[in-house]
Amino acid sequence: MNPTETDMCDIDRRDFIRLSSAGVAGIGLTGAAVSSAAAGLEADRPVFFQGDGLNLGPQEYAEVLAGLTAGGDLQEDYYSNGGVVEELEKRMADVLGKERAVFLPTGTLANHLAVRLLCEAHGGRRVVTQAESHLANDAGDDCATLAGLRVVGLAPGQVGLTLEEVQAEHARARASRVKVGIGAISIESPVRRKLGGVFDFEELGRISAWAESEGIGRHLDGARLFIGAAYTGIPVDRWAALFDTVYVSLWKYLNAGSGAILAGPSDLLDDLFHTRRMYGGALVRGWVYAAVAMHYLDGFEERFQRGITISEDLFARLEKNSAFTVRRMPSGSNVFVLEVRGTDPKAFRDRLAAAGISMREPRDDGSIVVQVNETWAAATGEDLGRRMVTALG
Amino acid sequence: MNPTETDMCDIDRRDFIRLSSAGVAGIGLTGAAVSSAAAGLEADRPVFFQGDGLNLGPQEYAEVLAGLTAGGDLQEDYYSNGGVVEELEKRMADVLGKERAVFLPTGTLANHLAVRLLCEAHGGRRVVTQAESHLANDAGDDCATLAGLRVVGLAPGQVGLTLEEVQAEHARARASRVKVGIGAISIESPVRRKLGGVFDFEELGRISAWAESEGIGRHLDGARLFIGAAYTGIPVDRWAALFDTVYVSLWKYLNAGSGAILAGPSDLLDDLFHTRRMYGGALVRGWVYAAVAMHYLDGFEERFQRGITISEDLFARLEKNSAFTVRRMPSGSNVFVLEVRGTDPKAFRDRLAAAGISMREPRDDGSIVVQVNETWAAATGEDLGRRMVTALG
Amino acid sequence: MNPTETDMCDIDRRDFIRLSSAGVAGIGLTGAAVSSAAAGLEADRPVFFQGDGLNLGPQEYAEVLAGLTAGGDLQEDYYSNGGVVEELEKRMADVLGKERAVFLPTGTLANHLAVRLLCEAHGGRRVVTQAESHLANDAGDDCATLAGLRVVGLAPGQVGLTLEEVQAEHARARASRVKVGIGAISIESPVRRKLGGVFDFEELGRISAWAESEGIGRHLDGARLFIGAAYTGIPVDRWAALFDTVYVSLWKYLNAGSGAILAGPSDLLDDLFHTRRMYGGALVRGWVYAAVAMHYLDGFEERFQRGITISEDLFARLEKNSAFTVRRMPSGSNVFVLEVRGTDPKAFRDRLAAAGISMREPRDDGSIVVQVNETWAAATGEDLGRRMVTALG
Amino acid sequence: MNPTETDMCDIDRRDFIRLSSAGVAGIGLTGAAVSSAAAGLEADRPVFFQGDGLNLGPQEYAEVLAGLTAGGDLQEDYYSNGGVVEELEKRMADVLGKERAVFLPTGTLANHLAVRLLCEAHGGRRVVTQAESHLANDAGDDCATLAGLRVVGLAPGQVGLTLEEVQAEHARARASRVKVGIGAISIESPVRRKLGGVFDFEELGRISAWAESEGIGRHLDGARLFIGAAYTGIPVDRWAALFDTVYVSLWKYLNAGSGAILAGPSDLLDDLFHTRRMYGGALVRGWVYAAVAMHYLDGFEERFQRGITISEDLFARLEKNSAFTVRRMPSGSNVFVLEVRGTDPKAFRDRLAAAGISMREPRDDGSIVVQVNETWAAATGEDLGRRMVTALG
Repeated sequence: MNPTETDMCDIDRRDFIRLSSAGVAGIGLTGAAVSSAAAGLEADRPVFFQGDGLNLGPQEYAEVLAGLTAGGDLQEDYYSNGGVVEELEKRMADVLGKERAVFLPTGTLANHLAVRLLCEAHGGRRVVTQAESHLANDAGDDCATLAGLRVVGLAPGQVGLTLEEVQAEHARARASRVKVGIGAISIESPVRRKLGGVFDFEELGRISAWAESEGIGRHLDGARLFIGAAYTGIPVDRWAALFDTVYVSLWKYLNAGSGAILAGPSDLLDDLFHTRRMYGGALVRGWVYAAVAMHYLDGFEERFQRGITISEDLFARLEKNSAFTVRRMPSGSNVFVLEVRGTDPKAFRDRLAAAGISMREPRDDGSIVVQVNETWAAATGEDLGRRMVTALG
Repeated sequence: MNPTETDMCDIDRRDFIRLSSAGVAGIGLTGAAVSSAAAGLEADRPVFFQGDGLNLGPQEYAEVLAGLTAGGDLQEDYYSNGGVVEELEKRMADVLGKERAVFLPTGTLANHLAVRLLCEAHGGRRVVTQAESHLANDAGDDCATLAGLRVVGLAPGQVGLTLEEVQAEHARARASRVKVGIGAISIESPVRRKLGGVFDFEELGRISAWAESEGIGRHLDGARLFIGAAYTGIPVDRWAALFDTVYVSLWKYLNAGSGAILAGPSDLLDDLFHTRRMYGGALVRGWVYAAVAMHYLDGFEERFQRGITISEDLFARLEKNSAFTVRRMPSGSNVFVLEVRGTDPKAFRDRLAAAGISMREPRDDGSIVVQVNETWAAATGEDLGRRMVTALG
Repeated sequence: MNPTETDMCDIDRRDFIRLSSAGVAGIGLTGAAVSSAAAGLEADRPVFFQGDGLNLGPQEYAEVLAGLTAGGDLQEDYYSNGGVVEELEKRMADVLGKERAVFLPTGTLANHLAVRLLCEAHGGRRVVTQAESHLANDAGDDCATLAGLRVVGLAPGQVGLTLEEVQAEHARARASRVKVGIGAISIESPVRRKLGGVFDFEELGRISAWAESEGIGRHLDGARLFIGAAYTGIPVDRWAALFDTVYVSLWKYLNAGSGAILAGPSDLLDDLFHTRRMYGGALVRGWVYAAVAMHYLDGFEERFQRGITISEDLFARLEKNSAFTVRRMPSGSNVFVLEVRGTDPKAFRDRLAAAGISMREPRDDGSIVVQVNETWAAATGEDLGRRMVTALG
Repeated sequence: MNPTETDMCDIDRRDFIRLSSAGVAGIGLTGAAVSSAAAGLEADRPVFFQGDGLNLGPQEYAEVLAGLTAGGDLQEDYYSNGGVVEELEKRMADVLGKERAVFLPTGTLANHLAVRLLCEAHGGRRVVTQAESHLANDAGDDCATLAGLRVVGLAPGQVGLTLEEVQAEHARARASRVKVGIGAISIESPVRRKLGGVFDFEELGRISAWAESEGIGRHLDGARLFIGAAYTGIPVDRWAALFDTVYVSLWKYLNAGSGAILAGPSDLLDDLFHTRRMYGGALVRGWVYAAVAMHYLDGFEERFQRGITISEDLFARLEKNSAFTVRRMPSGSNVFVLEVRGTDPKAFRDRLAAAGISMREPRDDGSIVVQVNETWAAATGEDLGRRMVTALG
């Protein structure tokens, strides 16, 4: 019943679509979307126990865009250059402590281009990463197919790597009959396939320093970096400082319809818009995504921290009730596993949906993966706990 | 003073951004965007003598989205699968007479994946196209870099190709010491770098039949296919029928913020969403683009045709006035070159802007590239002519 | 003192060059090379305790070529097509039980093209192999760099793989968010980096049957296949029958100056000479290698078997002498580790060289890697044992 | 009847094999090969009016090797490193005026690696060359397939390029919407597909200087550089000085069974042996080729020059005979077209073979492509002329 690497933390597509409609309809809301006060959305919006962000539906999303453009001063981009896209890039570079940031349509492309650039700059064609990382598993072997780079995944089943594991792979590469340098190390943290497990910061520091001394490029797949930062208390720029480049998602919790930021040194990224276009990733009007992420970036940390506080309050209450068990990952972040006793999990979930709490479907073993996000900030632990106890039936 | 291949038909970025703001402000419009009745936009919107579409600003675009989502029944996609994205794909496949259509973030990616798929299916690694095509010039040699394909551009300076030119290249490939098949022919029409010149339909038919008989894949870069169809009177599905795959832009005149459709046989395209994701082109929420294109697809042909009629009426009037000369490309489409005599072209353009006509900056020789689009449908030739004569000063 | 994967079984270059000269000179041979009767070489040639083959020096090699061409009926090839190259291809196809065999300049290219062809044929871009294989370590990541394929090495430190390990990797690939098929499994046996360890034949049968049922291509890196066959008693064609394609080295023990054979189905290999040329691997006159391998292929099995018999006789004798320990790999083949007590290993080696036994330099721990080959067939266990005891000093 | 680009100057494989056997047998030679005194071959060897070199058969080749190794001091290489291979590299670097030279198995690989290295060093992914070059036609698009580089061929049908043509392509690349630099210019001279036509040296100087100023790498495909030098009187190092890298064939006229030299700066080539191995081009024993080229390099220029002198004497004599016409390429080198009147060309060729002159088969129009090489040096113009007149029948 422990979380395993076969659990997917992202919302399953069909699941999600059903929930967001049904959930809203089920609690008697009108067509007009509801939203939390904190995010500028209406207060009687459901609390989402799934997803990393606000789970904005189309109507809500269009309303946000209408609000952002109403003043007439939002500047559009052209092929993802200029306007609010550039504003976001500058803002993100600043937040992450990097010289330059570039907007990209997806995180897959951000990770890919980062390791491509780093390998070119460092003269290596091998990329080391965690065996459970997105890059090693969920990018369709894009590094090999599109850039001729070999990705080697280390430490199957683990969240992190040790410096010794990385060094052993380095030694293996050096013992090759044909010289093949490691051009980049790509680290994902938190790790989606490990239910949000966070890489040990001290070990990361050792790896980072060693890699730098060996002339190996360092990339952070920080899709959920802000979440990792919130749970560890280590700010995003301290994580980013251990790497040459860092990718941050714009959609997972900054609520853009899509998009990613890749930040790093200017000499590496200044010409990236050409490569972005070559890959077919130069959206003509990227502002429809960038403007939304820009909006939610303001105050995100405080709102998300409030969500965490409320979740911890709730979990503490649930732990006192023998009907509930809440499991968290060692070195985890916002993903938990909830076990419910004495009731049918599916019926429990339906009753919770009617009570304004939107939750993933139970897994085969009856347990439910729960994610904390800023929608929790619109409630209190006491209130949520009461709804959950009631939903036991 | 004749149009040459160094003219760019797309709006230059800085040019465009300045115009859309300045133009709107200059004629005293409020922050609320104006739009043509035909497209559901307000009537006192400027007529754009530039661009292929409506030139929607951010405020207008957000309003369109708000309108489309207001009913609450717009279904969102997930990683560009399902929802309104799928609706658009089905609709486009139908319009183009193909089994399957796939949404992609950009036309660059659509062209690239088309030739990649066709080359794989036909067992060749060489791609033949026009020397002046987008694929040969403006895609950063993506076919070589990302897919290991060699693009050979034929007939420099020409809009089209002859069957004989294609056959000569085919013979050259066959005489190679190392077998290297031509996997695909990619034809652009209308041709942007040739000011909208349209490929001769009869010759295209000969090339298409020959290529099919030789087992060579056939792709149409029909970014502006609907414009070419409108000017030739040959419907889009008849053009598409000469090809295995066809790409159509969603932003140039269907007014989406970005996006492309690639249509063709199911066996080629059914799995394309995997490749799309590998390339980093799977937008999480593509509906913000697809829904807009879907909206403007309805009735596009009639509205655009009305724009043409009005433009031809205007050009006929201008021809009678010795102050004006209008040049069109032989076998051209919606791009013209206007020469104005007896006044300073820049001052003329400023006066026109004040009169609600938004125009490109004059070229070095004083002539102005003019594009017809559906914003013309909101005016009459007589009215436009009057404004132009007045603007002579 | 156990053999480990850091031991290299191939002869180190400087080591080898010194030995072959010094060895010959040291025992008073004339400039004319000496050779074993079995191989058509003179009888007082040294016995080589290193290398997999005859270790022909330039003079010997030229004499072999002179002998082979003296009759005037050796047909030359043209760009590795035709003549004795084609003869060898046909002969090897027959021996290996395959439809077609193709001559290639090196084993690196043979392995590379095999997995490239299999991946194309089976529509996958991932290649699974042993973590300790040549393909995973010593080919400079050529699959990624030159063919866009990702090689994944399984079971670090092990000679073989289990079906379950392969299936687990298959399951991982299938769980990817982007479809990425396994196009080929490449198995090396015997494994050079594991001191000649041989893959378990039964397990190989299970993996082979499963891979076939899953539509995954199967390649055997059988550089030393004939050696593995000699030690297991399982003939080469039975090993080859478990695979679609098989590579066999022409230089390691068939004594060609370079070269490799890739054998498999005609539909896969018939056009390979084009690809060979594209890679720059079409030697204009390959006969200088092919003719030699062809020559030594005749009777190889018997000669090598005799070498094994003599080596086993020797090892049995040494085991009775407390000054010697002979270690063999579990499931090993022709590579052994010799420990000598009561004498300085380097001095021991020098005395052996003077006595007509050419041996590798001792490793840091004093042990010596010993390889059995057909030069042993020119001696007897009794005689070799006597020389070794004498060399203890 | 003029030479055209569809003529192949290399000897057709079946043609050659038949000729070398039949020719030798036809004139009653024993199995022992005959050779010219100049090259250390017997004097009654046929004169070859085809091929660029000595056309050594297997028996002759083995005898050359036996002679070269007889002294016992020829040092072998290991994976193409060290020994006589290294000696040849140093010698060739010296002759060509470059810091470093590297042995490769084929010219195809030499050209490929040169442009790959230059493109990496100069940060471009486009390669410009002549439309009629080997790189553009006969390498199977290896640059695109194996290195992701796009080769653009300029000036179809021409031997050379003008600086203006190169600059126009450069301007086209710069006008691309996606930055795509020209990483290398590759020039072939003499041009095989243009019957040995030699690139204009002055124009080459202009192109070279311009390319250097633009930061574009410069490669010379000098497969037949020594021939071009002999005909123009401009020494090989002056040609090579215009380029960063230069490839010279070892088999065409230096008579090795295969092989190529790539020469250039140390910082570019010092690590090339790794890449050579990755491509599968590290022959274990390259000495069987390198030693032969090394041997024939000595005195090559004088011997070849003597061949030219004799050929020119012969051509002058033939011109006075109305039965013969000799055509040479404008700016050509050692390739000529011979027309014979008043006799059947095939019968003429048979009679010449019997008289010790080995010639290509007549083309469809009856004319015969004739190549000058150092076998001509064993005869006199007077003697050859007499044989040809006699062969008229």
